[in-house]
Amino acid sequence: MPRQKLNVAMIGTGFIAKAHSNAFRQVAHFFDVPYELSLKVVCGRNQAKLASAAAQWGWEEVSTDWHAVVARSDIDVVDIAVPNVLHAPIAIAAAKAGKMVWCEKPLATSLQEAEGMARAVRQIPNLVWFNYRRIPAVALAKRLINEGRLGQTFHYRALYLNQSGNDPNKAATWRYKRSEAGLGAAGDLLSHSIDAALYLNGPITELTAMTHTFVPGRDVDDAAFLLAHYANGSVGTFEATRYGVGCRNRHAFEINGSKGMLRFNLEHMNQLEFYDAAETPNQQGMRNITVTGPDHPYSENFWKPGHIIGYEHTFIATLGDFLEALARKESHFPDFDDAVSVQRVLNAVERSAASGTWIKMGESTA
Amino acid sequence: MPRQKLNVAMIGTGFIAKAHSNAFRQVAHFFDVPYELSLKVVCGRNQAKLASAAAQWGWEEVSTDWHAVVARSDIDVVDIAVPNVLHAPIAIAAAKAGKMVWCEKPLATSLQEAEGMARAVRQIPNLVWFNYRRIPAVALAKRLINEGRLGQTFHYRALYLNQSGNDPNKAATWRYKRSEAGLGAAGDLLSHSIDAALYLNGPITELTAMTHTFVPGRDVDDAAFLLAHYANGSVGTFEATRYGVGCRNRHAFEINGSKGMLRFNLEHMNQLEFYDAAETPNQQGMRNITVTGPDHPYSENFWKPGHIIGYEHTFIATLGDFLEALARKESHFPDFDDAVSVQRVLNAVERSAASGTWIKMGESTA
Amino acid sequence: MPRQKLNVAMIGTGFIAKAHSNAFRQVAHFFDVPYELSLKVVCGRNQAKLASAAAQWGWEEVSTDWHAVVARSDIDVVDIAVPNVLHAPIAIAAAKAGKMVWCEKPLATSLQEAEGMARAVRQIPNLVWFNYRRIPAVALAKRLINEGRLGQTFHYRALYLNQSGNDPNKAATWRYKRSEAGLGAAGDLLSHSIDAALYLNGPITELTAMTHTFVPGRDVDDAAFLLAHYANGSVGTFEATRYGVGCRNRHAFEINGSKGMLRFNLEHMNQLEFYDAAETPNQQGMRNITVTGPDHPYSENFWKPGHIIGYEHTFIATLGDFLEALARKESHFPDFDDAVSVQRVLNAVERSAASGTWIKMGESTA
Amino acid sequence: MPRQKLNVAMIGTGFIAKAHSNAFRQVAHFFDVPYELSLKVVCGRNQAKLASAAAQWGWEEVSTDWHAVVARSDIDVVDIAVPNVLHAPIAIAAAKAGKMVWCEKPLATSLQEAEGMARAVRQIPNLVWFNYRRIPAVALAKRLINEGRLGQTFHYRALYLNQSGNDPNKAATWRYKRSEAGLGAAGDLLSHSIDAALYLNGPITELTAMTHTFVPGRDVDDAAFLLAHYANGSVGTFEATRYGVGCRNRHAFEINGSKGMLRFNLEHMNQLEFYDAAETPNQQGMRNITVTGPDHPYSENFWKPGHIIGYEHTFIATLGDFLEALARKESHFPDFDDAVSVQRVLNAVERSAASGTWIKMGESTA
Repeated sequence: MPRQKLNVAMIGTGFIAKAHSNAFRQVAHFFDVPYELSLKVVCGRNQAKLASAAAQWGWEEVSTDWHAVVARSDIDVVDIAVPNVLHAPIAIAAAKAGKMVWCEKPLATSLQEAEGMARAVRQIPNLVWFNYRRIPAVALAKRLINEGRLGQTFHYRALYLNQSGNDPNKAATWRYKRSEAGLGAAGDLLSHSIDAALYLNGPITELTAMTHTFVPGRDVDDAAFLLAHYANGSVGTFEATRYGVGCRNRHAFEINGSKGMLRFNLEHMNQLEFYDAAETPNQQGMRNITVTGPDHPYSENFWKPGHIIGYEHTFIATLGDFLEALARKESHFPDFDDAVSVQRVLNAVERSAASGTWIKMGESTA
Repeated sequence: MPRQKLNVAMIGTGFIAKAHSNAFRQVAHFFDVPYELSLKVVCGRNQAKLASAAAQWGWEEVSTDWHAVVARSDIDVVDIAVPNVLHAPIAIAAAKAGKMVWCEKPLATSLQEAEGMARAVRQIPNLVWFNYRRIPAVALAKRLINEGRLGQTFHYRALYLNQSGNDPNKAATWRYKRSEAGLGAAGDLLSHSIDAALYLNGPITELTAMTHTFVPGRDVDDAAFLLAHYANGSVGTFEATRYGVGCRNRHAFEINGSKGMLRFNLEHMNQLEFYDAAETPNQQGMRNITVTGPDHPYSENFWKPGHIIGYEHTFIATLGDFLEALARKESHFPDFDDAVSVQRVLNAVERSAASGTWIKMGESTA
Repeated sequence: MPRQKLNVAMIGTGFIAKAHSNAFRQVAHFFDVPYELSLKVVCGRNQAKLASAAAQWGWEEVSTDWHAVVARSDIDVVDIAVPNVLHAPIAIAAAKAGKMVWCEKPLATSLQEAEGMARAVRQIPNLVWFNYRRIPAVALAKRLINEGRLGQTFHYRALYLNQSGNDPNKAATWRYKRSEAGLGAAGDLLSHSIDAALYLNGPITELTAMTHTFVPGRDVDDAAFLLAHYANGSVGTFEATRYGVGCRNRHAFEINGSKGMLRFNLEHMNQLEFYDAAETPNQQGMRNITVTGPDHPYSENFWKPGHIIGYEHTFIATLGDFLEALARKESHFPDFDDAVSVQRVLNAVERSAASGTWIKMGESTA
Repeated sequence: MPRQKLNVAMIGTGFIAKAHSNAFRQVAHFFDVPYELSLKVVCGRNQAKLASAAAQWGWEEVSTDWHAVVARSDIDVVDIAVPNVLHAPIAIAAAKAGKMVWCEKPLATSLQEAEGMARAVRQIPNLVWFNYRRIPAVALAKRLINEGRLGQTFHYRALYLNQSGNDPNKAATWRYKRSEAGLGAAGDLLSHSIDAALYLNGPITELTAMTHTFVPGRDVDDAAFLLAHYANGSVGTFEATRYGVGCRNRHAFEINGSKGMLRFNLEHMNQLEFYDAAETPNQQGMRNITVTGPDHPYSENFWKPGHIIGYEHTFIATLGDFLEALARKESHFPDFDDAVSVQRVLNAVERSAASGTWIKMGESTA
């Protein structure tokens, strides 16, 4: 059975664009999807970077004009891997042109923008690269929760700590400017934690937040913190910071429930820790599960038990799942609507941090 | 040189009283102090427990009347190891009778009570059993911070998680009743975290807090959370809960500074983790220091390097330091005033949790 | 019910003597034994050390003549905590004088000596301080093995690594001289590993060994290694070294069986790791059990769950068990016969290392 | 500059062939090599597997006749990923036909075979897939050793433990038959440990070994053990087993030297642990280095610091290094000669296990 060709245009040439390109090249090697991705055109502002990206990943063409690219009739998918401020205009233009849209997180620089984007893709297959949902250990956590292995949830504890802010070389990038990024650590890091929390623990009903900027004059947050109530009756905390010196990429969560505990840390992403409080008390302990099979999420796709995967595989698995859903004409999650939910929390974080008060989360937040 | 005898009366017969008794018996074995503690009288409400405590630890006498005990002319020290609500009357009576007072934490059930107790002991040697300051790893953390090894502090992150609340057998104890405990997890667990934070990171200037009770009808908090600003410019979080299923006694903190990171967890109390960001970048990593010597706090007192100490030694070291300070006629910390500082934060936590607003910490909070 | 007094004489004033003294002082605080230990006399060669030991631990008298001490009619127990070469003469003299004998490990400097000692105490309650059997985690390992939780044993892997040999200050002590120690790392460290292996995995049937000395001219081994077959069909390895730089006190074992795995490391002595291969495959993982209760060996004796014990408690628990067995007129293990079994393996190690051949273990090895 | 095309023929369709195919597809994405690999033909015995491999990885053609394949004039490289017994005939035929040869480990089923293979490729670029040398953490270990950070080496400790043998489904594969595999765990697992040891610690001068088979009638070893002396004066141990229940892929080593310690475990392959004994004693501890940059081996090739790589990247890096060396007309290691050195040790293991004696390693062992 021949695979259907999907012509992809990617807007962006940076680090994340590399991760996306790799996923485009690799997805068919690990997922049996009825599509063949054709790397048609890569689009960016810098000719040298474009040439390098094209040479490295085999993009057929380069372009410096995203408007032209998203209008091309031979393009099926527009993939967005540029600074946050450009997500909305590109996504909305691509959607208007009838393209599938795949967008890097955070979806937008504001809730309003995100909502507009979600409306634009309502009828169009879409994807937001909250890739960490597809970590096998995270997917296994979801499965255990769904099976009731944690019982009633009491606590959800989330950290996303890196030390990028403490590196003077990084301070000049777009991620540290409100005009390009919209948010600082909140958009970059906290958004992942929020997505994981909504995925694993359900809606947040109320929160209070603090944001902090260590460098005078910087107009985005360096760190963001919140206390939250969830619809399921649990309570939780979030901390995201670029000043977590000593931590390279500590996207971590812990969940305590009446029947057990789960713990995950991206720095050891092939492991999930599980404490089963249903075991005989004298044999209870935190169990370190190496989530590489057998019978683990994605273990049939990648290697054998005990042979770990890396960062890039989270993009491959996200894309694999998207394409499988596409073939079945089903929705894929997280989609733009999911990303709007994240953005709604980020919006509440901003407002709470500004007002110093608790914010109740409703479905509409104006 | 003969040791001076100190006649001790202990009020209490529970778990903590056992830890205190052990310290009284052991201090002279590990610290070269010019005092000999005489275990004169143990006081409690239950005759069977009194007899058992006396037999186990060699208390010379038993009593069921603490008023009479604190009034005895042959008693030098009154040690308080009873439910929180009794701390203030006993401590104040003992102080009025001119006794040294050693009091279990939290000092009191309210800030006002604590302040009254501190006034009462102003001229009297006193001690609050915030024993975890004397963990060698915590003392080493303090030393490294004082030496500037962390640089500018960015973040202070504190957890105190246990699962006692999830155990139906525990729900009936005094710790779960406002009338006897004053506070729930906040008094029991958070107070330790606050003391550690004030000791290691200095004063808190502002905070917002959430408390939560999982069991309907219970009148103390099961969990308490706060976001805080410190006088040194750092920001921090606290979480203390009795519903941290999977955690037995996780009194933990992490500190990120411009030059490094420290991490501690009471469940592995002989270790301190240190990340030195001043090392060559490609050799930076979290370093696991086994704090059993050489040249570690208290390593001359206990065993040889690699031979760990346990829970009880934190009481022994606290008492050893107190007695050494007493011999030198110096103050010992943490004293009642330090405990008032903790209580002041707990008071702000209560008020913030009730009002949902940020509270600025002043020296007087009435 | 009054406790029976046992008058103890301790021969030795060093580090191990301190650990024994502490156990004598503490045993009745944690074990409900019908004996009261009276610290009658401490015996050593150095007057200053004797005075210090007596002052620290409350020994009533000091002596420099062990012959006189073991002959005293008022002594019930002789405890031996001196260099290995003195174990045999003291133990045999004490046994002849009808005293109970408690002896530090390794029992002797040779198998022949050990066998003679065992004969001497045949009718007398005796104890060898292989204290690590009484670590709660080790005792829990034994329980799990006895319950069949490991199934058929395949592998027993033992390490005892410290870095004492790399410390120039230590090289002059008696432990580095054949005339006083008999063996080097083999006696000091490997003996513990052998005792644990015989206890947990049963008799060794055949072995080949290597010993190595890094310092020219030193007449004891710095490291000892063996490969072994066990009577239960499993195979195993041992490594003991004083040149394990980076390791403070890594007395560790791992056991792989058809149904699971156990792992222990003295540096984290309150933990036992257990892998249960009978669990659902996708939930299998190494489980970290904090062996502080509930329902763990010795958890009723010491503190509450989550409150760890230290090095010294292994001696307290050993003595507690001995005294309980004594009260019941039962044998206590490990006794001198158990220590002879260890010595028999050490003897085979020496012979195999010298000959470069496999040695079959028989009951008599001449 | 156009890349030179290299036409590759791969013999094999199993798990390792998948890892090789992935490397062929990925190498140019991560390494800037002047070659373009063309996946010309995949060769195997099973038509369904061939079709599947071709579809998954884009092999242009399939073949069931390796003799024909290696003789094709349009093939530049023959890659061998079949059972061990076929390595020699294919490699020798390919070499005779003038092809570059890349061969999976272990090189051969016997030392003699391996030596013949090495002679055959003497003038031809060749590669043996001892891929774990290219783990960034292992390469960093090599760098630290070369810089003298460990000082004089005392101990080299190697484990390779998995649980494949305890899985009844695996017992029927070629890996459990002498006629196809030559050796059991020794060839499969120990060979990796030996290669790492020779790479990191230099030549072995003398060894004694034990092999063991748990299943009656099986004609290969299930486990292999050795004690060894190295030319650098250090001593070491090896254990490799397929009955290490609880361990999925524990290829681990530890090295103790006068100035520090290194520790590695494939199950956490992005980490290297380093103990620097040159630090201030009270700050010494095992340091956990996440080897993902900056300034780490291969960190420029893959992702950003804190973004881990997986199993497959070890093949990509091996191939990248080979192609870079090829472009510079330099030798690449490990080559067939290195693999002969491994085979020489395996041969000595077999002989020692059979004779029960120590074997001195010479350059020729016939």
